[in-house]
Amino acid sequence: MLPIPFLLLLLSSILSPSSAADFCVADLSLPTTPAGFSCKKESTVTISDFVFSGLGATGNTDNIIKAAVTPAFSQQFPGLNGLGISTIRLDIDIDGVVPLHTHPAASEVLLVTQGAILAGFISSSNSVYYKTLYEGDLMVFPQGLLHFQVQCGSTAAVAFATFNSPDPGLQITSLSLFGSSLPSPLVEKVTFLDDAQVKKLKKVLGGTG
Amino acid sequence: MLPIPFLLLLLSSILSPSSAADFCVADLSLPTTPAGFSCKKESTVTISDFVFSGLGATGNTDNIIKAAVTPAFSQQFPGLNGLGISTIRLDIDIDGVVPLHTHPAASEVLLVTQGAILAGFISSSNSVYYKTLYEGDLMVFPQGLLHFQVQCGSTAAVAFATFNSPDPGLQITSLSLFGSSLPSPLVEKVTFLDDAQVKKLKKVLGGTG
Amino acid sequence: MLPIPFLLLLLSSILSPSSAADFCVADLSLPTTPAGFSCKKESTVTISDFVFSGLGATGNTDNIIKAAVTPAFSQQFPGLNGLGISTIRLDIDIDGVVPLHTHPAASEVLLVTQGAILAGFISSSNSVYYKTLYEGDLMVFPQGLLHFQVQCGSTAAVAFATFNSPDPGLQITSLSLFGSSLPSPLVEKVTFLDDAQVKKLKKVLGGTG
Amino acid sequence: MLPIPFLLLLLSSILSPSSAADFCVADLSLPTTPAGFSCKKESTVTISDFVFSGLGATGNTDNIIKAAVTPAFSQQFPGLNGLGISTIRLDIDIDGVVPLHTHPAASEVLLVTQGAILAGFISSSNSVYYKTLYEGDLMVFPQGLLHFQVQCGSTAAVAFATFNSPDPGLQITSLSLFGSSLPSPLVEKVTFLDDAQVKKLKKVLGGTG
Amino acid sequence: MLPIPFLLLLLSSILSPSSAADFCVADLSLPTTPAGFSCKKESTVTISDFVFSGLGATGNTDNIIKAAVTPAFSQQFPGLNGLGISTIRLDIDIDGVVPLHTHPAASEVLLVTQGAILAGFISSSNSVYYKTLYEGDLMVFPQGLLHFQVQCGSTAAVAFATFNSPDPGLQITSLSLFGSSLPSPLVEKVTFLDDAQVKKLKKVLGGTG
Amino acid sequence: MLPIPFLLLLLSSILSPSSAADFCVADLSLPTTPAGFSCKKESTVTISDFVFSGLGATGNTDNIIKAAVTPAFSQQFPGLNGLGISTIRLDIDIDGVVPLHTHPAASEVLLVTQGAILAGFISSSNSVYYKTLYEGDLMVFPQGLLHFQVQCGSTAAVAFATFNSPDPGLQITSLSLFGSSLPSPLVEKVTFLDDAQVKKLKKVLGGTG
Repeated sequence: MLPIPFLLLLLSSILSPSSAADFCVADLSLPTTPAGFSCKKESTVTISDFVFSGLGATGNTDNIIKAAVTPAFSQQFPGLNGLGISTIRLDIDIDGVVPLHTHPAASEVLLVTQGAILAGFISSSNSVYYKTLYEGDLMVFPQGLLHFQVQCGSTAAVAFATFNSPDPGLQITSLSLFGSSLPSPLVEKVTFLDDAQVKKLKKVLGGTG
Repeated sequence: MLPIPFLLLLLSSILSPSSAADFCVADLSLPTTPAGFSCKKESTVTISDFVFSGLGATGNTDNIIKAAVTPAFSQQFPGLNGLGISTIRLDIDIDGVVPLHTHPAASEVLLVTQGAILAGFISSSNSVYYKTLYEGDLMVFPQGLLHFQVQCGSTAAVAFATFNSPDPGLQITSLSLFGSSLPSPLVEKVTFLDDAQVKKLKKVLGGTG
Repeated sequence: MLPIPFLLLLLSSILSPSSAADFCVADLSLPTTPAGFSCKKESTVTISDFVFSGLGATGNTDNIIKAAVTPAFSQQFPGLNGLGISTIRLDIDIDGVVPLHTHPAASEVLLVTQGAILAGFISSSNSVYYKTLYEGDLMVFPQGLLHFQVQCGSTAAVAFATFNSPDPGLQITSLSLFGSSLPSPLVEKVTFLDDAQVKKLKKVLGGTG
Repeated sequence: MLPIPFLLLLLSSILSPSSAADFCVADLSLPTTPAGFSCKKESTVTISDFVFSGLGATGNTDNIIKAAVTPAFSQQFPGLNGLGISTIRLDIDIDGVVPLHTHPAASEVLLVTQGAILAGFISSSNSVYYKTLYEGDLMVFPQGLLHFQVQCGSTAAVAFATFNSPDPGLQITSLSLFGSSLPSPLVEKVTFLDDAQVKKLKKVLGGTG
Repeated sequence: MLPIPFLLLLLSSILSPSSAADFCVADLSLPTTPAGFSCKKESTVTISDFVFSGLGATGNTDNIIKAAVTPAFSQQFPGLNGLGISTIRLDIDIDGVVPLHTHPAASEVLLVTQGAILAGFISSSNSVYYKTLYEGDLMVFPQGLLHFQVQCGSTAAVAFATFNSPDPGLQITSLSLFGSSLPSPLVEKVTFLDDAQVKKLKKVLGGTG
Repeated sequence: MLPIPFLLLLLSSILSPSSAADFCVADLSLPTTPAGFSCKKESTVTISDFVFSGLGATGNTDNIIKAAVTPAFSQQFPGLNGLGISTIRLDIDIDGVVPLHTHPAASEVLLVTQGAILAGFISSSNSVYYKTLYEGDLMVFPQGLLHFQVQCGSTAAVAFATFNSPDPGLQITSLSLFGSSLPSPLVEKVTFLDDAQVKKLKKVLGGTG
């Protein structure tokens, strides 16, 4: 008979023929699939694939929205790939705003850890749900709905948003309209906005067409 | 031994203990669930639960957008419930438009059956994809992304859109902003639009606040 | 401080690290996966990936069933890949039929756009649901169940079927039995059909064995 | 300070606010949903909800197919509800057959525990895969595809089939065609079978119309 | 012609036949389903359904593990129901620990907001991944795997864990073994632990049998 | 007009542009994805991909647990890939045990085919469900929960477990704790076990650290 530990380890190795059921750390150099990135070989996976340290620092809010979004999606944090979850850090300076946007592929929970944020969303039936959130408050934004976050009070705000997708997407309405190449007449036609308004914002937000 | 047909029918009845695997026709009077409406008892289900005849007629386009959307979602067409699919008819009169919108919970294929439609969508990275579609053309709009349809050419257009959800939702951006109770200062803050523009459109689209 | 538009575009590019959440246009040359084809690089994606123009023309119904099926599945229409939806055009000439079949991986909605079609399905409990559909009628066929479409009335019929899968599959019962290599004695054993009947249809439908 | 065990149990009860994540034993008296039966209250759940003892006995094969199917689907075995799995026992006497059929909502693995069974399936592209299985052999039948099992050799056969759905459905092709109310002319039209053949089998299998 | 705003609102109401696609706030008094709680009627939903304020306060760590878990699962936070996400607050005092546990139904991301935590998980192949996390660090724990969190350093630690399920479940290994009614001989048989060890811990953790 | 069989086969080939909807036999040499292995080309698939013959033989129980687990997961049985199901054979000799374990990614049904097995699981709320199972009994273990199987009676036991995943994973609690490199002080901290107990079992089960 073989030594006992050897037999048990043998058993264990038989029982673990693949890491697919456990995790699939993204190999960013391989083709992507509808289910996410292809997986690194398990033998090359280390603890650093499962830890992301970029969310400790304040994001650079020296921009037009006085806010910063620091993502930990599967491209930045490959260990998330295939696990159905991801997180971002929000910094919103005084007077700052995370403009109206959607995440096409995920619901979101927002946790305020500093300051106060007026956050809200609009439903398909045009009902509006908004409230001022304080440190420790949690708000949920259902998948795909328009929502926003606005700094309130006298200090900068910090929040963390987590999504039930490793790649939730982010579509900022005003950037889609005024920061893209969608021709102004089309923008006006599909939004009812005035030509002057559209052209003014295209100049600010870098749009063409 | 029992007569053969009887035995086979017996077998058949044993093998069909529940209709759950086949379909779940919506009982609109029962509570809804995250997976859709509760099911009618199978004994009350008829062929009319699986057929919807409302899409043959031209919708009423006598409105501000010169367009009509006739939905066959699970509330109008209970047989769709739980089956992951639904359809709408679009009528777009000359000069009409289906304004910028998203479906939070579904991808869409659009089939043009009459006239011409300029259709497009914007991606999360603000790339714009649009083209004029003619009779028999098909276009796909990925889940949750902003898209629009504009009538082109010299005749009214008709199209049918199908979704991979029995209840895809529909969020029209300008109605969310200017037809809801979201206060004007908030609208302006989260979109960069001017106060005059917001107030003008609120008047047209029925918004308050 | 950097110019404002630059800062916003920078923000936008940070926020869009991957197109995975938006779409996954099929690269037919790469290996497939259980979730569909691998994705083309986003930089090579164009509007033509999202539009399919093959459904405008009448299919060739000069065949034994006097019907034609023109598919826009992910192999013909790569933009559908990963988006959970696809469409086919049905042409059924006078006296034509789409024989009894199933789609193993999808539910279907059928929209009649010309003529009349007698369509039906059979449930697991052998209940039969069928009705004559006219222009503008919609019928739903639950996933995996046997169903059929038969031309009615005095003109050829046209219909469009949409599926909640980019690759729904199509298994025509009589082709499976009589157009395949399943040996006649086996066909007879598993269907109760007579030997003469099986051999006659094998000759017509090209079966062997 | 409270006694330690009390504190820990308190912690435990806080952490287990609902049994929804663990299981959802079917309450057959409540309305069903697209996701299965509604759940019994956890306080009424016992070990007997999770054990099913009906598969130990040989099924009654005294019928036209010399075979018996004993299901343990969620209606017979309520503990399976919501857990995505179920099992049936197959008894196939000498010369017996489980006729051509599909499971619309599940893939299947078949384990032969006694005797020999010739089993096979047909793909969407009409490829045929079949083989004689012996005791201890396992075969997989992909979701929704036509398949069959035929007894081989000199003894009765026993097998167990497990499905990745608590309610996989079962559609026996010949029962759908000849044991239902689908009118004979329609059956003939959608299968190419002769009138005499259809009427003969309708008599045997109890069909009407 | 009707006034324009009226027509648009009419359009809007036609397009929003159901809130099912948007959200499904839990009605805790109705039966549960495999997909979660049944939904409240949309007319009774308010902003307070989507905000949870219980995570601002330090949990009571005066217990055996010197740690507290404050859950915001769908039972405490009904707006999460059906949205596939939930959050908990962890307080771990000096020398405290969140003992070895799994979440049967979800992956987890952990965000440290105060202090330092040694966190780790063990894979199916018995590989161990652990690291000390500091404020702002994020770690992901793949679904269903054993993991733990231990306070490090000189201050109490605070962290927030988010799950891709509104009801992830929580199974603490030592409570399952020593705080339940599983008889000691069985515990010993299935873990290889000594009788004295099992009985000692059963006394501490409140187990019986 | 072309010959009829040719036309029908042509139709058939048009209708089967891809095998993706039917199956995805694993190509173990290609990169894996979050949805499983990449697929072999359909032209190289044969019946032997769908049949696994390794479960007929008694496993080698000459080891510390007097039990053997013979897996037919997608690595051993490539035809299962993407189909959401897999099976293992359990042999448990007299006095043998399958120690406490979880499957992180699947629910399980266990079928006893020989002898008697005491099987049980523990819920998130620390309720214990266990019972002695005899030949022909079926028990279900909900996804991710701790469970065990212990031989009973006077003969060796055989059982087959099927999972609703092609790669369910298997995490044996005592191997994770005492057969891994998790340092003893950490093991003790997160389980409350005594140092002597931990070190004793590490020696037996091959752990380090």
